[in-house]
Amino acid sequence: MFETAELGRKLSKEEHKEAVAKLRTDLLALQERLGGADFPVILLIHGVDGAGRGEVIHVLNDWLDTRKMTTVAFDEPTEEESHRPPYWRYWMALPPKGKLAIFISTWYTRPIIDRAYGRIGDAALTAALADAVGFEKALADDGALIIKVWLHISKKQQDKRFRKLRKNPATRWRVTRQDLKNQKRYDDFRPLCERVIRETSTGEAPWDVIEAADERYRDVTIGRLLRDRLNERLAAPKRDRHGKPEAPIDNPETILDHLDCTATCDKLRYKKELPELEARLSHLSRQVRKNDLAVTLVFEGSDAAGKGGAIRRVTEALDARQFRVIQIAAPTEEERAQHYLWRFWRHMPRLGRFTIYDRSWYGRVLVERVEGFATTAEWMRAYKEIDDFERQVVAHGVVLVKLWLHITAEEQLRRFQEREQIPWKQYKITAEDYRNREKSNQYEAAANEMIERTSTEYAPWTLIPAVDKRYARVMVLRTVCDQIERALAR
Amino acid sequence: MFETAELGRKLSKEEHKEAVAKLRTDLLALQERLGGADFPVILLIHGVDGAGRGEVIHVLNDWLDTRKMTTVAFDEPTEEESHRPPYWRYWMALPPKGKLAIFISTWYTRPIIDRAYGRIGDAALTAALADAVGFEKALADDGALIIKVWLHISKKQQDKRFRKLRKNPATRWRVTRQDLKNQKRYDDFRPLCERVIRETSTGEAPWDVIEAADERYRDVTIGRLLRDRLNERLAAPKRDRHGKPEAPIDNPETILDHLDCTATCDKLRYKKELPELEARLSHLSRQVRKNDLAVTLVFEGSDAAGKGGAIRRVTEALDARQFRVIQIAAPTEEERAQHYLWRFWRHMPRLGRFTIYDRSWYGRVLVERVEGFATTAEWMRAYKEIDDFERQVVAHGVVLVKLWLHITAEEQLRRFQEREQIPWKQYKITAEDYRNREKSNQYEAAANEMIERTSTEYAPWTLIPAVDKRYARVMVLRTVCDQIERALAR
Repeated sequence: MFETAELGRKLSKEEHKEAVAKLRTDLLALQERLGGADFPVILLIHGVDGAGRGEVIHVLNDWLDTRKMTTVAFDEPTEEESHRPPYWRYWMALPPKGKLAIFISTWYTRPIIDRAYGRIGDAALTAALADAVGFEKALADDGALIIKVWLHISKKQQDKRFRKLRKNPATRWRVTRQDLKNQKRYDDFRPLCERVIRETSTGEAPWDVIEAADERYRDVTIGRLLRDRLNERLAAPKRDRHGKPEAPIDNPETILDHLDCTATCDKLRYKKELPELEARLSHLSRQVRKNDLAVTLVFEGSDAAGKGGAIRRVTEALDARQFRVIQIAAPTEEERAQHYLWRFWRHMPRLGRFTIYDRSWYGRVLVERVEGFATTAEWMRAYKEIDDFERQVVAHGVVLVKLWLHITAEEQLRRFQEREQIPWKQYKITAEDYRNREKSNQYEAAANEMIERTSTEYAPWTLIPAVDKRYARVMVLRTVCDQIERALAR
Repeated sequence: MFETAELGRKLSKEEHKEAVAKLRTDLLALQERLGGADFPVILLIHGVDGAGRGEVIHVLNDWLDTRKMTTVAFDEPTEEESHRPPYWRYWMALPPKGKLAIFISTWYTRPIIDRAYGRIGDAALTAALADAVGFEKALADDGALIIKVWLHISKKQQDKRFRKLRKNPATRWRVTRQDLKNQKRYDDFRPLCERVIRETSTGEAPWDVIEAADERYRDVTIGRLLRDRLNERLAAPKRDRHGKPEAPIDNPETILDHLDCTATCDKLRYKKELPELEARLSHLSRQVRKNDLAVTLVFEGSDAAGKGGAIRRVTEALDARQFRVIQIAAPTEEERAQHYLWRFWRHMPRLGRFTIYDRSWYGRVLVERVEGFATTAEWMRAYKEIDDFERQVVAHGVVLVKLWLHITAEEQLRRFQEREQIPWKQYKITAEDYRNREKSNQYEAAANEMIERTSTEYAPWTLIPAVDKRYARVMVLRTVCDQIERALAR
């Protein structure tokens, strides 16, 4: 593959000057247009040491309007970063719609280095590359334009370049010890990098290998690539981001119909069990901290199912410094300019902590689906995106407890009416709640499909009948305790 | 002081029930109105161990609409937090306008504990309290409503409460080892806390000591306090946030007039010195990392003074993973809902890193002042706020280099016209630049006052004549290197 990048392509000084003048003008105009577009651009710069990744960054920062872009070079993970799944820092660095980000030392760096030095085997490399492809697919599906550049120079050229830099005391520092160490393994890196490029060149995010022996040719080629891809994307028709509300369904039979909604817990038992369970949870919460686990609770369910009350019974058992309740409201401006999962990545807790979601990322396949806020393609692929997300979270040591609190349609109506009678509960009930009630069949069908598709071995759903509030609260606490205990035993 | 909180005030069950029903309704309505207001509310809950801080949090979370508030309990600083000045995490947790945040274990906790256990002396406590007062003043001046509650119980009541909790296995865990350790020092804590409350009860952010022996009385009193303060503030007239553009000034004589703008650096010397300086900076950048320092460069100056070009000469010498260039553009929605310094706290780098500001927090006393985007009171107090900010930054180990690049009015005009001739430089020049030029006298006068008021021993301004670009770039690099070297020698 790299042979085609060793052809000795060059640009003369004059050709370069002329090309650059045009390129700069074009790129600035395109960047201006990008500002009004509904997608971000992510440009990855990788390649052989000494091929000039750093210089390319400087050239691009010189050519482009730096107010509309960022450049991020990922270093070794900080302690804060290592407290989250590996992709957390990449999510956090993503550009919003209308902006460009240049990334160096990305999610490809660690797998390549680790494989070259024999720290991981072939299977682990394959898994790492699959993660990369999944990540890029989620972004590309959401509209991101991903351009991946690989700068190539031959072994001989690398040697020549390093020697020249090291001869001059003023440039000697540009060749690091790591560069020299890697240089010795050039022949190992070459086939390895070929494989990585091959396995991760997808339709959504292909690699472009660029001959980098001649600096002028290299810079102009990257500039043109960026220009052409941007041009092409800006010329494409705008994506339709509007879905359609779901059509009414007659009496769907769902898994929720099979729940025993008559289950109760009498007051006496409740008064005994609740404090016992809270004491147990409190004890477990200290174990969670000691064992560097984290706990994420997801509360979903019908309106008025009692999520808030159940959450309070959980938090009463926890140290206020150890937990955070996140109520999912309308996304902020910054959040709207990102992939819908971005804001959940953003709230990712450190290890040792509890995060409690009152509604969650499942909104994508529930309310957004039913109301048509997401297109069919968007909520359909969300099952896979959510699974990828949860897999990473759990693999990182998070105990993920997903709870569905269920009440019958009659009980819901009773609670709505009750809320309207109590002055300080009125704010909880709006015309929208009644509108949603009319769509309860669609909501139930969506919930049924969600449970079916996202109840995994590592992150199962627990369905809790919640007509009797005491019963539901006890069940919630018990489920949480059981799942934490199981994770601690592993 | 605490005697008045040991009077044995109580509420009967009936009184409590009646009061709560009214309070909840009132509080929800006020929270709704707060949503449309242009200030945030910060409620601090402190007090004696066992007085029920945790219970109060649960009660308030029950009474209020939790979608419009957050509760933050500050734990021991994480590694990420200890990489920033101590107040960083408090800034990051501030609620935006229209929202309420409840804070427990705040900036008061560490100084009180440290003083009680003799880890710090009286002088250090005084300094810590002054920091707290300065922080709260900056927020209150910006409009924040700050309510500070101190829950008090007597030594006897504390003892009784702990014994009761420890008797029952289901509640025993609520009394921590630290609680028991602190209990032994009740008599030390009492006068110490009195002093803290006295010294930090300001007009902007007074403390309210609340008798907490009776839970019902305690909860209702806090609820009423919150209600009354919110009511009072919402009734106050809205602050006028519009300033007036500065009036024209005739030929102000400023410090900038005394700069020698004829200074040059010939091409030959430049070709020799620039790489030498870059090599020196590269070497120093590794020392910065090793010694856990950080570097923040602030670039300010006339339009077209060559800030971008000078910045590129600095970044060329740095590892891309070690630096970040921040160009100050219009604030985002989230940023606009906070104190103007918030977004600079937000970008606070970890130790070991370089952060380069292309324009900075000084916009407050330059463009915002001249154009009337800030009121006179706002930009006048900004000098002090900026000084507080920079003092904390420097105290934390950041080398703060502030550079003013200056060109004459004639040279500026020449550059504007030159930019208009080059297609890929046209985007840098707008009608606004010419408008600003007409106000150059006002801008110069504002810059002069800024330099006078904010050139401190620990963060001095360096004024660099920049008519000759080569001269300016060499001077920038030399200033940066010199200041880093000085910091390393300390």
